[in-house]
Amino acid sequence: MTRIRATLEYEGTRYHGFQRQPGTVTVESTLLEAVKKITGEEVRLLAAGRTDAGVHARGQVIAFDTGSCIPPERFAPALNSVLPPDIRVVESREAAPRFHPRYDARGKWYRYLVYRQEAGYLFYRHLACLVSGSLDLPAMQEAAAHLVGTHDFRSFCASGSGVRSFVREVRSLTVTATPPFLVFDVQANGFLYNMVRIMVGTLLAVGKGKIPPPGVGEILAACDRSRAGQTAPAQGLYLMKVFY
Amino acid sequence: MTRIRATLEYEGTRYHGFQRQPGTVTVESTLLEAVKKITGEEVRLLAAGRTDAGVHARGQVIAFDTGSCIPPERFAPALNSVLPPDIRVVESREAAPRFHPRYDARGKWYRYLVYRQEAGYLFYRHLACLVSGSLDLPAMQEAAAHLVGTHDFRSFCASGSGVRSFVREVRSLTVTATPPFLVFDVQANGFLYNMVRIMVGTLLAVGKGKIPPPGVGEILAACDRSRAGQTAPAQGLYLMKVFY
Repeated sequence: MTRIRATLEYEGTRYHGFQRQPGTVTVESTLLEAVKKITGEEVRLLAAGRTDAGVHARGQVIAFDTGSCIPPERFAPALNSVLPPDIRVVESREAAPRFHPRYDARGKWYRYLVYRQEAGYLFYRHLACLVSGSLDLPAMQEAAAHLVGTHDFRSFCASGSGVRSFVREVRSLTVTATPPFLVFDVQANGFLYNMVRIMVGTLLAVGKGKIPPPGVGEILAACDRSRAGQTAPAQGLYLMKVFY
Repeated sequence: MTRIRATLEYEGTRYHGFQRQPGTVTVESTLLEAVKKITGEEVRLLAAGRTDAGVHARGQVIAFDTGSCIPPERFAPALNSVLPPDIRVVESREAAPRFHPRYDARGKWYRYLVYRQEAGYLFYRHLACLVSGSLDLPAMQEAAAHLVGTHDFRSFCASGSGVRSFVREVRSLTVTATPPFLVFDVQANGFLYNMVRIMVGTLLAVGKGKIPPPGVGEILAACDRSRAGQTAPAQGLYLMKVFY
């Protein structure tokens, strides 16, 4: 058996998230079908991140074991020939036999895309979240700085995630205006459930003047989800890269 | 009766072009249904440009007559409440009783969007045309200059258009690299059938070194469609603005 590691892009719009669920079309179920079509095998898929419905990926990493004689690098074009146009395999190669895309990851980079004007938004309706009206960018940047570092991020975690520890290290969190977009980039050693979307929702509340920038430090310290802002919609979120 | 003038945005992906055709869903048929839903009327629609299947609009202009008592400015939100999310009315107002979006237009601006890399293209697969590999931008810009001015554009017109004159005035034609996009902007007093897409296909052939820049002047002078480049795919084209 050979372990194949592959990097994927996908538009999450049509999918009920990454993870296989009976009776729905997910990114995973679509990939499993594609692997079966080209190798005849029913493999078990490992993935770096289980993105939610509507969430996109620019650099999802997956792995699976195969007994097929297809050369590892040829899996990318072979899978692309049978995958739908909203999932692309960017690259495939042989991995160490015990390589695990999630457990071996040293960190991840997520991006959140906000579209700042009504004009032209319809072209981005599946690819970004619309926030028109004024936003105080320096206030958002000041607030973002409070979230960088090693903290208990319980206030920024949706309930029902069942993790043991809420401590994560946010290595960077930047807010950049590149009109008509506002771009949030977050890198961390790991992410809690809905962590980026709650961070973005909270920073947008800062931008609208509903929360003062130091308030974000207080929200963090409170370890209470109800103190933070709303969960920003799924369609603005991209898993950009997994670091190993 | 009041003549209503409205400005539209739409993503053309799902539509068999603008113009009504029996048995297919077009932008026009969708608009007519929406007008009927809010006024009960079966109106006749006038439009500035009949965009092809897959072609988009940022500033299409339409007009229709109504006996409804809806205030002209309220047509935009009323239509948006019943239109699908890939068609938006940006603005509506009362027009002169004989206003005609096409015959009264003094010019139009079309944009053509090329995406320059494989990475991330899947998000733009309906919104831009993929051209990877090297392109000589200065050569394309030099070639574009040959197309500016008042010329017989027969070489840049698809057959079967049945127009009387092929003479048009191209007021500007720019090629701009804004990575990952290459943007073609063309303004003219009027356009022949497929004119922008043939221009772009020809300029891309220049970029690839298949046609030297002065060759575009020769193609123009030849008045022969077979001399020009391929028609670039529909999904990169946007009707940006109509000038009155």
